[in-house]
Amino acid sequence: MSPSASDVPSPPATEPIPAEVEALREHLAPIQDLRTAAQVLSWDQETYMPSGGAEARAHQLSTLQRLAHERFVADETGRLLSDAEAAADGLDPESDAASLVRVTRRDFDRERTVPSDLVARMSQAVSRAKEAWKSARADDDFDAFAPHLETIVELNVEKAEAIGYKEEAYDALLDEYEPGMTTAEVADTFDRLRKDLVPLVDAIADAPQIDDSVLQGSFPVEAQKAFGEDIIREIGYDFDRGRQDVSAHPFTTSFGVGDVRLTTRFDENHFGSSLYSTLHEAGHGMYEQGIDPDLERTPLAEGASLGIHESQSRFVENQIGRSRAFWERYAPMAREAFPDALADAGADDLYRAVNRVEPSLIRVEADEVTYNLHVMLRFELERGLVRGDVDVRELPDLWRDKMDTYLGVVPDTDANGVLQDVHWSLGAIGYFPTYALGTLMSAQIAEAMEADLGDLDARVSRGEFQPILDWLRTHIHRHGRKYTAPELLKRATGEAFSADAWLQSIREKYGALYDASLPQPGDAT
Amino acid sequence: MSPSASDVPSPPATEPIPAEVEALREHLAPIQDLRTAAQVLSWDQETYMPSGGAEARAHQLSTLQRLAHERFVADETGRLLSDAEAAADGLDPESDAASLVRVTRRDFDRERTVPSDLVARMSQAVSRAKEAWKSARADDDFDAFAPHLETIVELNVEKAEAIGYKEEAYDALLDEYEPGMTTAEVADTFDRLRKDLVPLVDAIADAPQIDDSVLQGSFPVEAQKAFGEDIIREIGYDFDRGRQDVSAHPFTTSFGVGDVRLTTRFDENHFGSSLYSTLHEAGHGMYEQGIDPDLERTPLAEGASLGIHESQSRFVENQIGRSRAFWERYAPMAREAFPDALADAGADDLYRAVNRVEPSLIRVEADEVTYNLHVMLRFELERGLVRGDVDVRELPDLWRDKMDTYLGVVPDTDANGVLQDVHWSLGAIGYFPTYALGTLMSAQIAEAMEADLGDLDARVSRGEFQPILDWLRTHIHRHGRKYTAPELLKRATGEAFSADAWLQSIREKYGALYDASLPQPGDAT
Repeated sequence: MSPSASDVPSPPATEPIPAEVEALREHLAPIQDLRTAAQVLSWDQETYMPSGGAEARAHQLSTLQRLAHERFVADETGRLLSDAEAAADGLDPESDAASLVRVTRRDFDRERTVPSDLVARMSQAVSRAKEAWKSARADDDFDAFAPHLETIVELNVEKAEAIGYKEEAYDALLDEYEPGMTTAEVADTFDRLRKDLVPLVDAIADAPQIDDSVLQGSFPVEAQKAFGEDIIREIGYDFDRGRQDVSAHPFTTSFGVGDVRLTTRFDENHFGSSLYSTLHEAGHGMYEQGIDPDLERTPLAEGASLGIHESQSRFVENQIGRSRAFWERYAPMAREAFPDALADAGADDLYRAVNRVEPSLIRVEADEVTYNLHVMLRFELERGLVRGDVDVRELPDLWRDKMDTYLGVVPDTDANGVLQDVHWSLGAIGYFPTYALGTLMSAQIAEAMEADLGDLDARVSRGEFQPILDWLRTHIHRHGRKYTAPELLKRATGEAFSADAWLQSIREKYGALYDASLPQPGDAT
Repeated sequence: MSPSASDVPSPPATEPIPAEVEALREHLAPIQDLRTAAQVLSWDQETYMPSGGAEARAHQLSTLQRLAHERFVADETGRLLSDAEAAADGLDPESDAASLVRVTRRDFDRERTVPSDLVARMSQAVSRAKEAWKSARADDDFDAFAPHLETIVELNVEKAEAIGYKEEAYDALLDEYEPGMTTAEVADTFDRLRKDLVPLVDAIADAPQIDDSVLQGSFPVEAQKAFGEDIIREIGYDFDRGRQDVSAHPFTTSFGVGDVRLTTRFDENHFGSSLYSTLHEAGHGMYEQGIDPDLERTPLAEGASLGIHESQSRFVENQIGRSRAFWERYAPMAREAFPDALADAGADDLYRAVNRVEPSLIRVEADEVTYNLHVMLRFELERGLVRGDVDVRELPDLWRDKMDTYLGVVPDTDANGVLQDVHWSLGAIGYFPTYALGTLMSAQIAEAMEADLGDLDARVSRGEFQPILDWLRTHIHRHGRKYTAPELLKRATGEAFSADAWLQSIREKYGALYDASLPQPGDAT
């Protein structure tokens, strides 16, 4: 990496904030309040709300979201923004003020170009599609969901046309979740993954399988909760500015840098699932907790992109949590927390068990190696849908074919296949790739960090997490949305986004774990 | 009671809702959403929010409350309201539509008459006074709080002048919390209480004291929680439309009739405190859960007044919870829940212990008999402040004098005296009387219910709560704010508000408990 990237960037010169930018910021603050208030209501909905509260909650959320949107796309925002742009003209582009103006312009133009009748039609389509998807998945009946998905694809294409794009409509959709990244770049990245990963998965399948029976047993929920929380506290998640609760699907949500909450779920008979979801969400949470407080109540007080966000969760989950060093540190604590189930578990047993690779049907249960293939499959299909190359009705067959080709397993139901994910029913097309991008970025970030800090494993095994957190704070967290993902990654690592670091680390790690002669880069070409 | 009051009122004839009223209702719905969303945020603040969340939460709450206020007092509300009034002219005044228009007019005129600069000055004064009160109470330093209280009194007088009143400024303040009740009526009521209660407390003090040592011991929190929740579930609080959490000060809050939440707090060494707070809050909660769902998202979907609200909490806490019949039903369950501490506790032991009367310094810890005297003292002082008869600087001395006269105990610190309550620091003058009014109403309601349903104690001792809940639903709960407190009480009991029922029940109950020859009504005059 370049020396400039490893230096702590000098703080931007303190320039007076122009009154016009301050006026814009004051206009945006209550809009952010409405958005974060909605986050509180959503969090409550998933954690503590009694069943009887659903109807009122839907009204409350819809009102808060509508008011935030109306105020943001109002002509007044446009006027204040134009004035602020003029006033910010000579400012350091990296200053908070210039960044606020730049990012607000991007958001404003994007939100204004989508006609409000399209927003309304999408919202209606989604509210029907969500229900349809739930029953379709329960009944394993893709045909019942298909017309809803067709509508959602049509509306997404309409939205992309309204927003505009350079090469293909999918660019405009991807840009909402991963600003600065193009469809072509994602496709190139997946091409590399396909070539290297598919033979790697084959080779692993031929090697003797890892025994992960140590993860099965009786793991009392209270002990799991304490174990997970002790670990993430040590790694750097701040419980004075957050908490962990239980929900059906784990998530992280932020109401401000001082209140960033995680959720998890517990399986009494399995050791890994809650721990790794806790580590994953803690990575997201540490990111949100690390945003510069000066950016509070502005559109900058969020993650740079979903990919960058995922890089932080994957960093903690995989780069830290699935390392041998992690278990060197935490195996003794695990034996103490679960004296019955883990009496004889050594660091190496646990390290090997949590890294077992096994092609499977469900994305969210996939291991580190096969996970990205699940994402690639979805990207290919949804890109085809947007291009018009793929018809919704073909999806179940295409899904089975691709699962067979990439992973060597084929779902016997659509519920375990094309119907397994909620995203399309929520209207989100262009979201899936960010999972893989983030995973790849996490390895690139770890490589740059190691170049700066030296042997990370040694630090992890001694529980020295502060330098790691400081590095992430300095290079990633504090900037919020000031930089796009490609800019941020370049600043942090000195290099452009690439799958190299991840592929190399995967080959090394799993080559050793499976004692297999793994294919080298490009072997399959 | 009159026969008309005991009849279930016939449902209002189904009249078509005029389009103008519907337009008003649609305009008000998102305003209610903002208000109930703010309630969710406040609930979270008191239950789960980490300390780091305070600053962002203050912004979020202030934004939601400001937006709700701005939209409500907007000219558009006035136009829609005038149109709706014209359209509702011929409607049955008890219909939802006519009630919506009538109550909205009352709220609108009241909120519009208070100038927004006064609202802003009050809000600033309160935010300073709250902090000043906290430190003043901690330091036992009334002088540090006095200037803040002076400002709050001045602003309240200014507000009363803006709103207008018939007889005295306090009327306008009281009307915010207890619409339809006058200062003179409250003063007359307290005159009666003073004459009867002060000698009654004296007589009890001369009788042998009740032994309440059964309430002291070790009561595990989990068992207390289960015990309290089992009881309120049986009485009629619906956990599918609510839940109970822990907070520093117990409260009830509603986000809609389908989501009404209680909080409590636990003292491991005392049996009564959490149980009676749970019963009290469950009474509030059952009221909110019983409001007609047709009134949802309108200003009618709340309690009629703070007094009526308190009548519901006191009904469950005192009329049910402090009866001998209650302990006949629940003593066996209590022995089972706390086998160590309550092994030998019989229904009569528990009944007597929870009804021990002992003049004390702190209002919120006062027993059923002395409680209203604490409230009376506060009413007299704050009425004097508003009239200009009492100077803020005189309060500590006046407090001690009145405590001595009414209760025979004198605080040795202002922290345990004039500084004990938060209300004045929140800007609330005219609020205290509603505690006593509600307590008195609860006995009046119990009397009317007994006339309709027959022996209530027999039902309570058998756990037959459904007819009791049904009566409350029919006569009180479902109406929300359609009637003022005096109207509602008249409809429910057939009689005007009066302290008679409560005074009579207190004399009977405590005469028997203390085996004392208690003074008869008016003896002291």
